[in-house]
Amino acid sequence: MNELLIDLDLHTGISLYEQIYRYIRKDITGGRLSCGERLPSARLLASQLQVSRSTVDAAYAQLVSEGYLQAKRGSGYYVCDIGALYDLAQPQVQQFSDSLQKTRGTQPKYNFLPGQVDDQGFAYNAWRKCAKEALLALETSHQLLQAGHPQGEYELREAVASYLYQARGVRCQPRQLVIGAGNEYLLQMLGQMFAKGAGKVAMESPTYLQAYHTFQNIGYEVVAVPMDDYGMVADKIPDTDLTFAYVMPSHQFPIGTVMPLKRRLELLAWAKAGEQRYIIEDDHDSEFRYKGRPIPSLQGISQLDRVIYLGTFSNSIMPSIRISYMVLPPQLVDVYARTCGFYASTVSKIQQMTVCHFIKQGYFERHLNKMRGIYKSKHDLLLYLLKQKEWVYRIYGGHAGLHLAVELDCGLTEEEVSKRAEKYGMCVQGLAECYPAGDGKRGVRPVMLLGFGRLSEKEIRDGVEILERCLQEGGDQAVGLIPQ
Amino acid sequence: MNELLIDLDLHTGISLYEQIYRYIRKDITGGRLSCGERLPSARLLASQLQVSRSTVDAAYAQLVSEGYLQAKRGSGYYVCDIGALYDLAQPQVQQFSDSLQKTRGTQPKYNFLPGQVDDQGFAYNAWRKCAKEALLALETSHQLLQAGHPQGEYELREAVASYLYQARGVRCQPRQLVIGAGNEYLLQMLGQMFAKGAGKVAMESPTYLQAYHTFQNIGYEVVAVPMDDYGMVADKIPDTDLTFAYVMPSHQFPIGTVMPLKRRLELLAWAKAGEQRYIIEDDHDSEFRYKGRPIPSLQGISQLDRVIYLGTFSNSIMPSIRISYMVLPPQLVDVYARTCGFYASTVSKIQQMTVCHFIKQGYFERHLNKMRGIYKSKHDLLLYLLKQKEWVYRIYGGHAGLHLAVELDCGLTEEEVSKRAEKYGMCVQGLAECYPAGDGKRGVRPVMLLGFGRLSEKEIRDGVEILERCLQEGGDQAVGLIPQ
Repeated sequence: MNELLIDLDLHTGISLYEQIYRYIRKDITGGRLSCGERLPSARLLASQLQVSRSTVDAAYAQLVSEGYLQAKRGSGYYVCDIGALYDLAQPQVQQFSDSLQKTRGTQPKYNFLPGQVDDQGFAYNAWRKCAKEALLALETSHQLLQAGHPQGEYELREAVASYLYQARGVRCQPRQLVIGAGNEYLLQMLGQMFAKGAGKVAMESPTYLQAYHTFQNIGYEVVAVPMDDYGMVADKIPDTDLTFAYVMPSHQFPIGTVMPLKRRLELLAWAKAGEQRYIIEDDHDSEFRYKGRPIPSLQGISQLDRVIYLGTFSNSIMPSIRISYMVLPPQLVDVYARTCGFYASTVSKIQQMTVCHFIKQGYFERHLNKMRGIYKSKHDLLLYLLKQKEWVYRIYGGHAGLHLAVELDCGLTEEEVSKRAEKYGMCVQGLAECYPAGDGKRGVRPVMLLGFGRLSEKEIRDGVEILERCLQEGGDQAVGLIPQ
Repeated sequence: MNELLIDLDLHTGISLYEQIYRYIRKDITGGRLSCGERLPSARLLASQLQVSRSTVDAAYAQLVSEGYLQAKRGSGYYVCDIGALYDLAQPQVQQFSDSLQKTRGTQPKYNFLPGQVDDQGFAYNAWRKCAKEALLALETSHQLLQAGHPQGEYELREAVASYLYQARGVRCQPRQLVIGAGNEYLLQMLGQMFAKGAGKVAMESPTYLQAYHTFQNIGYEVVAVPMDDYGMVADKIPDTDLTFAYVMPSHQFPIGTVMPLKRRLELLAWAKAGEQRYIIEDDHDSEFRYKGRPIPSLQGISQLDRVIYLGTFSNSIMPSIRISYMVLPPQLVDVYARTCGFYASTVSKIQQMTVCHFIKQGYFERHLNKMRGIYKSKHDLLLYLLKQKEWVYRIYGGHAGLHLAVELDCGLTEEEVSKRAEKYGMCVQGLAECYPAGDGKRGVRPVMLLGFGRLSEKEIRDGVEILERCLQEGGDQAVGLIPQ
């Protein structure tokens, strides 16, 4: 056919080229022009439509580039086979109806989940100031847009290194530091540094399941090592090489054990005894210790280079900032560069420099001291209230961190306690949820994790009362005793 | 021994408890108190030092908690074995002497590397405005600190979904979107969603090596599939299942091929023919097309659910922001939630909301149009200059993206060209560097990648002249012809 039904409208905002393009595409996708059919020459169509030749050329060129037409030298334009082509001209209505995705569930009235932080005491003004300064400094130095160092901005690593030395006795140079978007990301890097899937990871049980799942996802065999009152039992760790021992000596999650020096030395001895054995020290909760001075890190007391130190700003600044840091032993720095050095940093440069200012200008230290005071009073109150209760059998993990583990003297299961508490608007988690798959919780009594970080004094008092009601006979009927 | 030589000083700022603690620790680490030795009872020491009993108790308790002392019920305090204990009392001087880490090498005078962005045209004011608004909004809503949605803030996913639909014809709901800290991170998530290491990845050769190395690191077998002028040759892709085909149809890196519809349909047919075959569409450079309208994405024209769409804000906003997005087919959303849903988001909430404001308030669109103009004029100039040169054999990848691939008609190797250019302060990369290991570059002539994104008009002109000098006889003597 040499006649196209194209009705150009000079008064719409749409260019003639675009109109011609759309008409022909519509004819093709609508089937009025079929595969192999020859189109009128650009010259002919131009004269038919009384538009310039170049206008038609542009429309044809676009149709060719999108694969609707094929140009055969000297013979003209032909319709292509567009079998599976979806017609964009008929926009599918977008339905954003997945309300479930909008929130991670509404906030419970009493959120006793662990790892919740206080959002009243945060140094909002200082943070805003540092964010503004970081942005302006990066602008004026023309460094805002350009990709930064793959291990993280040097200034930030310098600040973190000296903070870790002063606060945790960690000995490192900035070159040993890798800044990354969360502990799990850094653990993945660690996993990639060694022969894929060849290694074992010894973990305490119960433990921090995010780390457990991460190792599983990246193909490492996870060995659940039992723990006693001092933490991971060193002589239960596999005697194989290329093995990591993942521990949280400052305040084990979720039990809250503080690992004494003796056990730390046993761990170091285990690492020393093999070719490629490393201790991953997740210094969880080290910032918030409420009794005595914090115990120096394993990395700090070790004279071997077998400790990989892991820390995060999630609790010390905010969970939403997503900045963690990993201290590699000197001999692993090159291994990292060789195996993972091609990865660009996972943390935005602006955020890195904001934190850097926050630390260097002393706000971080002041913030930590302030929050330690706030959390201590919440911790002390919860501890005091629980100690009054005859239904409290034992309390684990006091004097540090943002939660307590409470063993209850009652006939209920953890699930039953959680369920009943839920009816009062209280969200509380049982210890069983922290055990790796296939490794059942020991002990018959329910152990509940009571996170206090985000709660007010009143909410803490209410929470303990709610627990008491839950444990009483007929807790199911007790709904609404506390006005919602 | 029952006598400790402790000389308390009431006039220092240090508390008595701290002083006693330090004296005893020093005696232990200094060897004056040896393992197993018994210390004076707290009562006795208190009276000797004339301090309160509780002061000594506190010091002893700290020494116990740090593992220097061991308390034996009813018998007193004994010195522990602290063999491998490092004495923190003698702080090791921190040397931050690794200047190499401070920068990624100084900026070359003429940076022709690909993937460099223009930092003059950026919408600094709009960005600052959005950053400020995001920060304040999060503060007032008390959402700043709290962890966000693991797949990314819903508002941002909504904004990205509608941008992708309008600009790229991508059809998705926010629930299909995963926001992550860079393409490589999202590829790692993808790798973890399927049986670890079981899968194959078909990649073009040459290709984007970061992606290649990522797949290698996470244990996938990478198959280099040859490409012709239309991109990856579909019938060269392995016929196995659980295979990804990683392609860049909009503008293949580094060659710059724009994949025509015919080839796209062949790829979709390949995916359809197997149980678990997916096309990973890295929509690289799709924002910057200088001729005609952009070609709709593979994801948009496909009627199958076998396309995983990948995009980034690195070129469209800034490389330093580290935000990418992945569109999963509906049936993979649950797989993601099941296998990777436990990972917290890798992007700071503040940054996410800043970008969200940037898009929703129309700044992003205006920025893209402005930058497209800026890059087009740089692109056109470089293309024009090169077309004058008889030593240019062929130019690849024009009309899109931030670089050109230029095949040179000369007897030099790519390394020789790079080396010579370096002497003029020009940094330029050869195509050979983009081939997977063991898969040698085809063709005898050197092909250089000329990135123009960050360069001024003058720098582009100088660069072409420098290349010419490099190709001339005795390029080695030509040093300094252009004043540095």
